[in-house]
Amino acid sequence: MSSLRSTLDFLLHDWLKVAQLNERTRFSDHSRETFDAVLDTCERIAREKYAPFNRLVDTEEPRTVIDADGSLRVVLPEATKAAWQAYAGSGMLTAAQDYDVGGMQLPYTVEAAAGSFFGVASVSIGGGLLTIGNANLLMAHGTNLQKQVFALNEFNGRFSGTMCLSEPQAGSSLSDVATRAIPDGDNYQADPLGPRYRLKGNKMWISAGEHELTENIVHLVLAKIPGPDGRTVPGTRGISLFIVPKKLVGIDGQLTGERNDVALAGLNHKLGWRGTTNTLLNFGEGKFQPQGKAGAIGYLVGKPGEGLRCMFHMMNEARIGIGMAATALGLAGYYASLDYAKSRPQGRPLGPAGKDAAQPQVRIIEHADVKRMLLAQKSYCEGSLALMLYCARLVDEQHTGTPEDADEARLLLEVLTPIAKSWPSENCLEANSLAIQIHGGYGYTRDFPVEQYWRDQRLNMIHEGTHGIQATDLLGRKVVMEGGKGLQLLAGRVNGTIERAMQRPELAGHANALAKALQHVGAATKAAWATGEPTAALANAVPYMQAFGHMVLGWTWLDVLLAVPAGAQDAASIGRVHAARYFFHYELPKLGAWLKVVETRDPTCAETPEEAF
Amino acid sequence: MSSLRSTLDFLLHDWLKVAQLNERTRFSDHSRETFDAVLDTCERIAREKYAPFNRLVDTEEPRTVIDADGSLRVVLPEATKAAWQAYAGSGMLTAAQDYDVGGMQLPYTVEAAAGSFFGVASVSIGGGLLTIGNANLLMAHGTNLQKQVFALNEFNGRFSGTMCLSEPQAGSSLSDVATRAIPDGDNYQADPLGPRYRLKGNKMWISAGEHELTENIVHLVLAKIPGPDGRTVPGTRGISLFIVPKKLVGIDGQLTGERNDVALAGLNHKLGWRGTTNTLLNFGEGKFQPQGKAGAIGYLVGKPGEGLRCMFHMMNEARIGIGMAATALGLAGYYASLDYAKSRPQGRPLGPAGKDAAQPQVRIIEHADVKRMLLAQKSYCEGSLALMLYCARLVDEQHTGTPEDADEARLLLEVLTPIAKSWPSENCLEANSLAIQIHGGYGYTRDFPVEQYWRDQRLNMIHEGTHGIQATDLLGRKVVMEGGKGLQLLAGRVNGTIERAMQRPELAGHANALAKALQHVGAATKAAWATGEPTAALANAVPYMQAFGHMVLGWTWLDVLLAVPAGAQDAASIGRVHAARYFFHYELPKLGAWLKVVETRDPTCAETPEEAF
Repeated sequence: MSSLRSTLDFLLHDWLKVAQLNERTRFSDHSRETFDAVLDTCERIAREKYAPFNRLVDTEEPRTVIDADGSLRVVLPEATKAAWQAYAGSGMLTAAQDYDVGGMQLPYTVEAAAGSFFGVASVSIGGGLLTIGNANLLMAHGTNLQKQVFALNEFNGRFSGTMCLSEPQAGSSLSDVATRAIPDGDNYQADPLGPRYRLKGNKMWISAGEHELTENIVHLVLAKIPGPDGRTVPGTRGISLFIVPKKLVGIDGQLTGERNDVALAGLNHKLGWRGTTNTLLNFGEGKFQPQGKAGAIGYLVGKPGEGLRCMFHMMNEARIGIGMAATALGLAGYYASLDYAKSRPQGRPLGPAGKDAAQPQVRIIEHADVKRMLLAQKSYCEGSLALMLYCARLVDEQHTGTPEDADEARLLLEVLTPIAKSWPSENCLEANSLAIQIHGGYGYTRDFPVEQYWRDQRLNMIHEGTHGIQATDLLGRKVVMEGGKGLQLLAGRVNGTIERAMQRPELAGHANALAKALQHVGAATKAAWATGEPTAALANAVPYMQAFGHMVLGWTWLDVLLAVPAGAQDAASIGRVHAARYFFHYELPKLGAWLKVVETRDPTCAETPEEAF
Repeated sequence: MSSLRSTLDFLLHDWLKVAQLNERTRFSDHSRETFDAVLDTCERIAREKYAPFNRLVDTEEPRTVIDADGSLRVVLPEATKAAWQAYAGSGMLTAAQDYDVGGMQLPYTVEAAAGSFFGVASVSIGGGLLTIGNANLLMAHGTNLQKQVFALNEFNGRFSGTMCLSEPQAGSSLSDVATRAIPDGDNYQADPLGPRYRLKGNKMWISAGEHELTENIVHLVLAKIPGPDGRTVPGTRGISLFIVPKKLVGIDGQLTGERNDVALAGLNHKLGWRGTTNTLLNFGEGKFQPQGKAGAIGYLVGKPGEGLRCMFHMMNEARIGIGMAATALGLAGYYASLDYAKSRPQGRPLGPAGKDAAQPQVRIIEHADVKRMLLAQKSYCEGSLALMLYCARLVDEQHTGTPEDADEARLLLEVLTPIAKSWPSENCLEANSLAIQIHGGYGYTRDFPVEQYWRDQRLNMIHEGTHGIQATDLLGRKVVMEGGKGLQLLAGRVNGTIERAMQRPELAGHANALAKALQHVGAATKAAWATGEPTAALANAVPYMQAFGHMVLGWTWLDVLLAVPAGAQDAASIGRVHAARYFFHYELPKLGAWLKVVETRDPTCAETPEEAF
């Protein structure tokens, strides 16, 4: 039976050949052994500190108590703190960083692979996704002191991080951010931690926005700086980025003892993913009076008006992180339903004379329809895992490849990110539903883990940019940017896979099907933009993204099969061959239905008048 | 804007012309006015007694307390009792029955339509589905005294009913029922309530199996009567059916004061549908000692060994009821997300020059992708509603049509029942997911109703025969039974619709698409059975059912459009035309991908060895 570890080993080494990265200077101290040690450690921590508490953090969801100073405090299960401490203690928060800041210069590909253990064990206890992303952003855009005071203390686990974009009146529409930042006194430019502002506004949907797992919380907050007339620039160009610590910090990185004016206004009570606190935060409402007056103290990161560009540094990583979380949840359901199917007796095989009730029942994995539901899950989830690791490998290429390779990797990542975020979110949700279905009535009870995976999973099509936003990003921007070069690059990679597959007779059928799919997606892209009207082109952006994603997954599976020796008869190889065949026979043919409305720029939905609903 | 009531009125009168039923003797006292009065009453009760408590029954799910006599008792919110009393008080439990047993001889079509109000308001508070089904079964198969003592007291709301099929070790596999029924003494045949047995066994997944909403609960229980050697007949042929009341009842219908040996062993804690208690019941474990000894007293219904045949009388009704519940949940999500989309400002329209951030935000219903998600919901859910009412109309035809029409209706129902149960269960789940998506992050919180609809909905693919069982029933039995006559009849109806649509130029495109779909389904049915091997034919029964269902819904929508006047420009008509067009443009083309694996009898899943997963 394939386990997560054996699948990761195959993908990392047989397929992606990550050990070749060790030839690069940055990774030259690494070897298969050091990579294995990282995977071993994460697998162990996930097994010991995460998996046993996944149901607990769902049942005992975060709640608030009123503290002595009148502020709300969040209470989490003890297990959450133990998990965080084990995670931070493992060094994984800083694994990818330079040696000179205490990192281990681990390739991102290996970091991402190792992170999947936590997602499978308990996605909502969570790892350091936000904290690492937050600190990485500061390493890229912060001053030296900002890096030292904030980022490095996130990497060592003392502080944790958030990203504060959404507001109650502006969820997906960042142009409408209304949080304002006013220079804090005449000497506001003189603060060693960065130009100091006072922020006022409300931020919604802030994950891990309040808790006591760490000494401090580093909020990265989008806000607008009013001009001399007191007005802000409309649109996203007016947005700046600020570090707003929950508790004020000195230049030595120690807490000053003073609380910043950031107050928890309330918790969101969610359908799932309950191990992670989700908050509404009030900045600068005057609940606290740092340095004697109301207003949340924030330090500008980068230049005024460049906040969104900086934030997207974090957002792209976050989107790949969501894809990985979706994949991990999908795999968790797959493993659970596979176990169940192997142990649950029910029914009898169909014979030519029907069923023989005098025979004992068989285990349900012997039924073709249960096998179909298992193979679908394997096909979706292991395919997603391969795609996520491929994207992670592109991140490494972007950071350590030759300038040409790095730029190619950057462009490919631009095109693939909406797919990496959306495809697992949608298809691993279906996988989780199939995991419930295999369990029958038991799957609908809270005595089995699969209903929780399905609930947790439902968030992934919403957070870090909804499905609709990913689709608009893909068709409206990514496939046309730089003259369509990203799409051409991807097509080149797909064609490379097709050419290699054509040389293996057993893969020629899949290769031909993929070639047709690629051609179809290309033609549909042109047809969508034939009139040049964004409204017409993007009316069916989601079906386009669904089809594009299926093409990408077909490519991923075919490429993975190239790493399976021809004629291999071991169970794992047969499993991969069948999962890929499932994808090509059952899934890829769906592409035509999605692209039909794209090609015709079908206006049925857009033209439905409001009163007709 | 279309409301449930206006949609029902259109489907019942403009499309199905149910008032024509009043020409039949059974319904001759009825008129549009009496039908309207029933709908008015149910709409009012649903609005007052169900809708306000839908979240409450989810939050305060059933719990148990230990009674003075040591037995477990179920505690439900007060609102549940008030809802039941209003429902029973409305006379709806007995609406379809003869005048001489206190009924109103209402057509089932109208009863089903009226029931949809309760499903939309709160599916899990529930109406009388199980109680009516239970009593209907007794009216068909019980003795006169069984009808009088049990069925009539269910119709008047004093008693409620359950169906007890599943056992912990035998969920979908009824052959493996292990509950045993032993004749209760030498005079067991002499009991006026029917041959008296003592039952012993455990029943799982029993909805409404324990509560105090009614004076008594009438369990209909499947069990096996051992032969003289103490052994039972393997398979479903050995199954008999028994009335097992929770509390013993005299021939006058009054409680004797003695408790039967039926004990609540525990509650299932579910993902959703929490307003309905779901129980594990122990029969005959000796917790109670009716008439001085252990063993649950049960009265045989019908003949020994014919239990399953009798039970399926109830099961088919239940399956249509599930389809209607799924439809109602889908509609509830559609209405909620439509309201939200009309009131939530967010983002700006795309213009040729992009978005203008200086303009105010628009309501999200103005975005094409939100319209797409709304139209998809409308297309799925109103299409399902039409199909369910069509099936209900067939039930009326079966009961009151000419012998030829009745037999045709029976056969059509046989073929359509798996679709009526499975299609809304699967597609209205997708509708509920889209309703969450439209709400964005808010949809993922418990502050809005849509996450609950989605959770409640997930049950429908599982209970009353899983998706896989419906698919096997359809492809393995229904389309081939009686020489394929059911499928031919359906094809005849579909072709009739196509012919009428061909005469309306604006419908010719849809008609052609449907004709191709029908031909494709027919060819795939033959191809699936080409080898005559059930294993090969049924390996892809679920994709077959998905395709078959889409063909049926395409037919339903086209037939509905025939009731929309050509060129009608009122909002409701435009809405139906667009919803149907959505189905034909976005959904029907999916059929090819599903049928591909059916036609080729694709063995990918069946041939995946267990160790390869």
